[in-house]
Amino acid sequence: MSPMTTLSTTGQVFGVGLGPGDPELLTLKALRLIQQAPVLAYAAAEGVPSFARSIVDSHLRGLDAKVEIPMVMPMVAERFPAQEVYDQGATEIRSHLNAGRDVVVLCEGDPMFYGSFMYLFGRLNGAFPITVVPGVSSVMACAAAAGWPLVARNDAFRVLPATLDDDALRQQIDSAEGLAFMKVGRHLARLKVLLREAGLIEHAVYVERASLPNQRVVPLMALDEDRAPYFSMVLVHCRGGAHVL
Amino acid sequence: MSPMTTLSTTGQVFGVGLGPGDPELLTLKALRLIQQAPVLAYAAAEGVPSFARSIVDSHLRGLDAKVEIPMVMPMVAERFPAQEVYDQGATEIRSHLNAGRDVVVLCEGDPMFYGSFMYLFGRLNGAFPITVVPGVSSVMACAAAAGWPLVARNDAFRVLPATLDDDALRQQIDSAEGLAFMKVGRHLARLKVLLREAGLIEHAVYVERASLPNQRVVPLMALDEDRAPYFSMVLVHCRGGAHVL
Repeated sequence: MSPMTTLSTTGQVFGVGLGPGDPELLTLKALRLIQQAPVLAYAAAEGVPSFARSIVDSHLRGLDAKVEIPMVMPMVAERFPAQEVYDQGATEIRSHLNAGRDVVVLCEGDPMFYGSFMYLFGRLNGAFPITVVPGVSSVMACAAAAGWPLVARNDAFRVLPATLDDDALRQQIDSAEGLAFMKVGRHLARLKVLLREAGLIEHAVYVERASLPNQRVVPLMALDEDRAPYFSMVLVHCRGGAHVL
Repeated sequence: MSPMTTLSTTGQVFGVGLGPGDPELLTLKALRLIQQAPVLAYAAAEGVPSFARSIVDSHLRGLDAKVEIPMVMPMVAERFPAQEVYDQGATEIRSHLNAGRDVVVLCEGDPMFYGSFMYLFGRLNGAFPITVVPGVSSVMACAAAAGWPLVARNDAFRVLPATLDDDALRQQIDSAEGLAFMKVGRHLARLKVLLREAGLIEHAVYVERASLPNQRVVPLMALDEDRAPYFSMVLVHCRGGAHVL
């Protein structure tokens, strides 16, 4: 069988970014592909509804039911990213692709930016045609929510997982004009100490659940709690949020 | 006049991200606001059609004509970002807001990420209600075009304007797992030298006009030319583009 025949008879994979949570922040392309897809795959944490699936819920109403492939992650931090779950998901996805059905993988935010899609991409790339549809990243959504210019002109920008250890964070906090800390969660107290130490805490804003109805924006200085939900971020600019004014 | 009265009688500003260029990468929210807006403002370079305006062109067909405020930037690098052009644009925008008309500012990519919207934001913030609608950034669009996972797990990520000088770039290239170089343009040759020096050129991909019909993706090693168009980017990962496989 020639490659062209393969392309025309197997299904395609679409890794589709959904944006930060507001169903209206889907792109037109994401909406079209999701509504047309016969099969949807998405990650979910054990015991709670899939956030990715919830973002598209309102867009599926009134449409014929689709085949859905939830990839349920065990809630044991040590086993994350649960390679076996992705192995199993990829096997199920392959069977649909081989039967000629396209599969849309729903991805919170953007698929290639700290996204779980990359684990499927790694398993399927080369064997099937894959199209990645970029989405609005939570970094940009947090900046929009906070009215916070991230970077301008010749600024350097860094995105840092707050899960890095103190020394790694200290080293990275230096010498960038703009910073975004992802995965703040239980690292919030530690992050406050490090930013105070670096003289940056007055130039930092905390954003929780950007674009969702319960979105919250607080100057980091004014934030009392020491733990944050998983969907939270701290944005910093060395000249503060008004740096371009 | 009480602030509430002001809010209800003046118009609102919407800084709307349009994404990287494909009109289908607008968000649903962007499309709704643009189609409803009585007034559109956008930046344009002298002598060429506005890229931002061209992205929404197909979405305005069949609608009533809108008031349009092009902010035309003189093509003299030394005067960029042409503060007088934004002063004048802001004055025109204010007159519509004071007359109760909403104004949508069209922003390529995302408004708060190296975007020209920030100059208007600085001029209008505090005086009028401003809503920022995040958009798909060119960073994510380039990664999607190249099938290039940007960062995963605990990776640190940096975005660097290629306009920085050699020493600044050298210092920043160290110690981040993922890198994106913006504004590559006439700095391409220099960037190749710096990445070869850092042992990273084999782990870099060049992307031009992501999401547009003339999009181009080339491994940086295989790229002959020494200058690139303005809308181009170089993505690097210290373990290469297959780092999550």
